[in-house]
Amino acid sequence: LSSLKLTQPFIIQEELKNIYLFFTHLFIYFALGSRYVSKTATKTVSEFEYDAPSMKTAVPGPKSQELLRQLGEIQNVGAIHFFCNYEESRGNYLVDVDGNRMLDVYTQISSIPIGYNHPALIKVMTNPNNVSAFVNRPALGILPPENFPEKLFESLLSIAPSGMNRVQTMACGSCSNENAFKSMFIWYRNKERGYASPSEQEVGTCMINQSPGCPDLSILSFMGAFHGRTMGCLATTHSKAIHKLDIPSFDWPIAPFPKLQYPLEEFVRENAQEEARCLEEVEDLIVKWRQKRKPVAGIVIEPIQAEGGDNHASPDFFIKLRNIARKHGCAFHVDEVQTGGGTTGKFWAHEHWGLDDPADIVSFSKKLLTGGYYHRDELQPDKPYRIFNTWMGDPSKNLFLSEVLNVIRRENLLEEVTRSGKALLQGLYSLQTQYPHILSRARGQGTFCAIDACSDATRDSIMLKARNKGLFMGSCGEKTIRFRPALVFKEYHVHQLLNILNDILAEHK
Amino acid sequence: LSSLKLTQPFIIQEELKNIYLFFTHLFIYFALGSRYVSKTATKTVSEFEYDAPSMKTAVPGPKSQELLRQLGEIQNVGAIHFFCNYEESRGNYLVDVDGNRMLDVYTQISSIPIGYNHPALIKVMTNPNNVSAFVNRPALGILPPENFPEKLFESLLSIAPSGMNRVQTMACGSCSNENAFKSMFIWYRNKERGYASPSEQEVGTCMINQSPGCPDLSILSFMGAFHGRTMGCLATTHSKAIHKLDIPSFDWPIAPFPKLQYPLEEFVRENAQEEARCLEEVEDLIVKWRQKRKPVAGIVIEPIQAEGGDNHASPDFFIKLRNIARKHGCAFHVDEVQTGGGTTGKFWAHEHWGLDDPADIVSFSKKLLTGGYYHRDELQPDKPYRIFNTWMGDPSKNLFLSEVLNVIRRENLLEEVTRSGKALLQGLYSLQTQYPHILSRARGQGTFCAIDACSDATRDSIMLKARNKGLFMGSCGEKTIRFRPALVFKEYHVHQLLNILNDILAEHK
Repeated sequence: LSSLKLTQPFIIQEELKNIYLFFTHLFIYFALGSRYVSKTATKTVSEFEYDAPSMKTAVPGPKSQELLRQLGEIQNVGAIHFFCNYEESRGNYLVDVDGNRMLDVYTQISSIPIGYNHPALIKVMTNPNNVSAFVNRPALGILPPENFPEKLFESLLSIAPSGMNRVQTMACGSCSNENAFKSMFIWYRNKERGYASPSEQEVGTCMINQSPGCPDLSILSFMGAFHGRTMGCLATTHSKAIHKLDIPSFDWPIAPFPKLQYPLEEFVRENAQEEARCLEEVEDLIVKWRQKRKPVAGIVIEPIQAEGGDNHASPDFFIKLRNIARKHGCAFHVDEVQTGGGTTGKFWAHEHWGLDDPADIVSFSKKLLTGGYYHRDELQPDKPYRIFNTWMGDPSKNLFLSEVLNVIRRENLLEEVTRSGKALLQGLYSLQTQYPHILSRARGQGTFCAIDACSDATRDSIMLKARNKGLFMGSCGEKTIRFRPALVFKEYHVHQLLNILNDILAEHK
Repeated sequence: LSSLKLTQPFIIQEELKNIYLFFTHLFIYFALGSRYVSKTATKTVSEFEYDAPSMKTAVPGPKSQELLRQLGEIQNVGAIHFFCNYEESRGNYLVDVDGNRMLDVYTQISSIPIGYNHPALIKVMTNPNNVSAFVNRPALGILPPENFPEKLFESLLSIAPSGMNRVQTMACGSCSNENAFKSMFIWYRNKERGYASPSEQEVGTCMINQSPGCPDLSILSFMGAFHGRTMGCLATTHSKAIHKLDIPSFDWPIAPFPKLQYPLEEFVRENAQEEARCLEEVEDLIVKWRQKRKPVAGIVIEPIQAEGGDNHASPDFFIKLRNIARKHGCAFHVDEVQTGGGTTGKFWAHEHWGLDDPADIVSFSKKLLTGGYYHRDELQPDKPYRIFNTWMGDPSKNLFLSEVLNVIRRENLLEEVTRSGKALLQGLYSLQTQYPHILSRARGQGTFCAIDACSDATRDSIMLKARNKGLFMGSCGEKTIRFRPALVFKEYHVHQLLNILNDILAEHK
């Protein structure tokens, strides 16, 4: 009920003139019999944030539609939801160009760490000392700025996964994974040739794309994985056909990812069997590809398969997989592009595994604001220019990241995520108990949560209705709704979300 | 002599206390007998710029060396020249952390369009209306900001190559080329299947990297080309072995790029023969790869091969190549990542060919500050999410680009580039006439110039000496010095450059 009280001032101020919308809101908040009863939660979000969603039109509204038409002359706009007024967006609330204000639990495909227009980030922008970092983008690999090592220590290295003291920044997630793969190939070949110089034949053949210079090495990935869309990454991505159709690829091994039953704690035995089956297949594939003379240089995996439908596996699965990698001399690459940055309640999702040396490479992007990857000493290329490009990241993003980390520490946001995540998952459990014909398989870690609808059509319908009621969510997999709120998502917002979802489900026929 | 006069106030102000350096400078400017006599050139650079280089230590100086040590604990630092003080850098002058001020004709691997800390760009940063674009990076493919179409029209579309009214932004040059390649593959397969829906078999096989879903299509590239380092791009890059060694690749056709004799106008007949030979080989390869069942979906080429050693070809060569592409149903992709942005005297280097419809795709990055590519209508993917990623560029870079274009127009920088380029090339011709045992093959278009040294060791030695005298240049190919100044590089700077080079060559034994 506290959430309701807090929405009243906003209704009075902004909505009173619009009687129709006022009654619509009253209907949403009072009229539905099967209303989800939210627990009391104190509002602790920063002063600058809004109190609640506020809808003025269906989404996309007329202004968005006009802009869609304009942009449609330049680009394919089929994936665009609506146009945004980022100036007016604040915290967890995304405002569109038609003045609709939505609770955003998709956060630009999980890439906004501490909400919109966080005052701490605006301060970074308006600090005159930082102007030069924005205006003069350096070629970091040859001419870094004076404060580059300091900023790396203060930002990325201060949150380095255990065992990793080296980091390479990149401009985006795909570039991060591409270069991580390249590091694994270089490392593997150096091992194979006993760290000797490459032969003349290798140097000659690599220039014309032929072996042995361009060797037939492979990366083992998992069905349902998403590691990006550039051609190396795409060969390890197996989430949706639309990502891959018509693009040439590599003959690399693809293992099954465990299909677990949820809640995990209720299906321990069944899930362990399923994981054992997948691990056995991994080893078989490694042997098979060695026999095919396309040895597996590295294994790449997400701690939670995100685009593929929020598929979890147990710490035990990852521990055993890591051991298989070591046993067969493959590098082990944990792709934390979507799971990293605190959303699971730990800064890196793989920290939940409880391993001292969980990986050889950990890649990131999205919430980290810059792409890149950490790696062990051995994975550092032996020579300069092997891992290289013009920009190698963007120091202005490192400035923002430093400040994001300050906010995370100052406001104990990982604890908040754990608290909000528990409330969210509990709420999803309640909803699927209440609507078992519509929802199932609620699952999550921190606020990195998901729930399945009974069909893709139902999922899409729920999402569109939610959007029109001021809740903006994302989808993944075949019929999954994924929740990817920012780290400033509080219990207060959880209950807003659950109330809206509950209203829609109650209406659903 | 005018350049000398202008350096005097600076010497008095900043150098007088340092008697040793003062005399060093006097030596550089007066003492050498074979001094290159520069023509009179009026200084027209903005008030904010420095007058001349100013060196305080050898490069890298002690501060750079200490920072190299620090960063070496995190990354391979073998490619780093020195650390920069970007706050103090202005216009064409890059200042390092040891207080050395160098005339920069490499400009962050050709990626700084209008010099360091241009007041117009600082104004973009400090305009409160722009804060939100920096602080809230959107997922452009799903939730663009309100002004996104307007900013695209005002920036990228205002300079679109002829025949191109569609543009897709990306975060960097490699991502631009990767996605341009993907667009060509999708376009080619849609043609092949008669624009029908993909078969079930295609949808099924693409998920496991197999044909026909992931077809054996190829991109034809040229020996000496550089199109990036992600795995798709890398399969079309053939400039240096260190870029490609140990990385798996695709069996794609590689044609010879014409090896021309310079100056082009003196070897018209010989060069035409060489170009005809290469074009014949292109057609042979297209036929051969069709027979191998790996048909060529697209041809990718740089208007001037940059990383590969500044290799030019005639407009006639490109016109015929474009016709070959059309004849065989291949898309034609002009990679302007390094040549684009005005440095050849036209905004796009391929505009020098004088063709109405020179290309199907034109990719860019670097001086454009954002990556991306223009394309014809037909090259637009038929469905959303086929060309997609989280960020799809960065609107804050579009803001800077708009302002860069304003400056280019306001200050007639393309005309300036043409003027400075002529002076630079004339100067290089003089130098190679004066030092024929050291220099040869001076060539260029606009300020996009290059000259070869007699060996890689001589080239490297000249570059290091120049750096210590305040001239920072880049290399490419095997023994080439490349000049990549910003668009604000004036005749005044040309003569500074030539004077320093001449001093070094006169000393060279």
